[in-house]
Amino acid sequence: MIIIGERINGMFNDIAHAIREQKPAAVQEWAKKQEAMGAGYLDLNVGPALSDRVTAMKWLVEVTQEASDLPLCLDSTDYDAIEAGLKLCKQPAMINSVPAVQEKMDRVFSLASEYNAEVIGLAMSEEGIPKDAESRVALAMELVANCDAYGVPLDSLYIDPLVLPCNVGQDHGPEVFETLRQVKLLSDPAPKTVVGLSNISQGTENRELINRVFAVMAMACGLDAAIADACDEDLIAEVATARIVLNMDIYCDSFVEVFRTQNL
Amino acid sequence: MIIIGERINGMFNDIAHAIREQKPAAVQEWAKKQEAMGAGYLDLNVGPALSDRVTAMKWLVEVTQEASDLPLCLDSTDYDAIEAGLKLCKQPAMINSVPAVQEKMDRVFSLASEYNAEVIGLAMSEEGIPKDAESRVALAMELVANCDAYGVPLDSLYIDPLVLPCNVGQDHGPEVFETLRQVKLLSDPAPKTVVGLSNISQGTENRELINRVFAVMAMACGLDAAIADACDEDLIAEVATARIVLNMDIYCDSFVEVFRTQNL
Repeated sequence: MIIIGERINGMFNDIAHAIREQKPAAVQEWAKKQEAMGAGYLDLNVGPALSDRVTAMKWLVEVTQEASDLPLCLDSTDYDAIEAGLKLCKQPAMINSVPAVQEKMDRVFSLASEYNAEVIGLAMSEEGIPKDAESRVALAMELVANCDAYGVPLDSLYIDPLVLPCNVGQDHGPEVFETLRQVKLLSDPAPKTVVGLSNISQGTENRELINRVFAVMAMACGLDAAIADACDEDLIAEVATARIVLNMDIYCDSFVEVFRTQNL
Repeated sequence: MIIIGERINGMFNDIAHAIREQKPAAVQEWAKKQEAMGAGYLDLNVGPALSDRVTAMKWLVEVTQEASDLPLCLDSTDYDAIEAGLKLCKQPAMINSVPAVQEKMDRVFSLASEYNAEVIGLAMSEEGIPKDAESRVALAMELVANCDAYGVPLDSLYIDPLVLPCNVGQDHGPEVFETLRQVKLLSDPAPKTVVGLSNISQGTENRELINRVFAVMAMACGLDAAIADACDEDLIAEVATARIVLNMDIYCDSFVEVFRTQNL
């Protein structure tokens, strides 16, 4: 499973401050730290409070690329900000994200086609997030069809079944697992899958415990990537272990350390 | 998932000594300790070295039942020892185990029928353990058919797909997960599933890490029970968490502690 490091996000005070003051130190430190821990991508989110998200995203892309060669995951509901960021990315990036809403899919998949980008597609529509796996998979199929129509390779699409906190939407858990399994049957090549991991533990006790258990269980159902805390050592160790058990990496005694150096 | 506490086993020196000297203290301490940690069954294995396994199993059953009311899992390849133990069990027990070999199935399922016992059925034949899931499932089907023929309820049968150490049989891992999923499609009611958890980490580094990650991944594939170290606190916490994420227990902030008191 690929870890998309979640930490460069304007929801965190240090990043919000860095963006406001145009001081790159905090951003660049987190870029290096997440890369060292095994992240394969860096998520960049300017946060909810800014008015000029285009300028902020451009700045984030530039200063992050000065510190790390990892591919970037541009995380915004403002597609102008995403496009401005894509123009600056030195290597193919990931667009985070698009729901199964036609005009948004039209915009995002044409951006993906133009900039050779990957796309996170959300199993939600204008009506919100469905509960059952069947409805989530139907929305995933709409995303697959649109991805294909715009000539974007199907394995550049990451379906996010959408995870709810287990203390409020507990019945969604098994549906998410089932969605992860069924999405792999939608096309050949199959789309990939991703979750926003920390959503599962919003407002709970034992957040890290719940995050890492959910992560490896989802991996058993075919999860390919997670937007997650790359600096959570126990999470990284368990993800590395799950890759061994799934025969994705060859066992050696130092498999946890080896995983960190791979930046998959 | 049900934890079948593995610790009362003559492979451990303290238990071997207890059996030899007929001193029940170590056995009874482990019985109480495993129950307190959340075990739902206690595995009893007299160990490999004894000549009179019948006498030893009878003694183990008696002294364990003085210390704990948990149901017992009688673990031996000597079916005379199993039968002698079954006669003494105060409540329905589990027989551990029978391979898909006809004369052994005849003996074990008739014992199960007579003593109202559950049975662990191994996905192996006289030729050994097959590698691919399809062959394991075919052996599981033979066990299901024999279980049914002897009038033993199908949900009293626990199929063990057989786990190999991930440093020697790494390619078996995904096959075991697939077997766990497919076994649930064999009958209605479906058989249950079980693994000998610590097999996955024999001879590896980070044994507890590998054990707990494998356990919760297997739970995502439908695993019902594991013969495991009930005193591994991190394992118990992760199993409790997996039950929350699978919506098997209702979330509360103290869900780990609640799990320990349930003895599922």
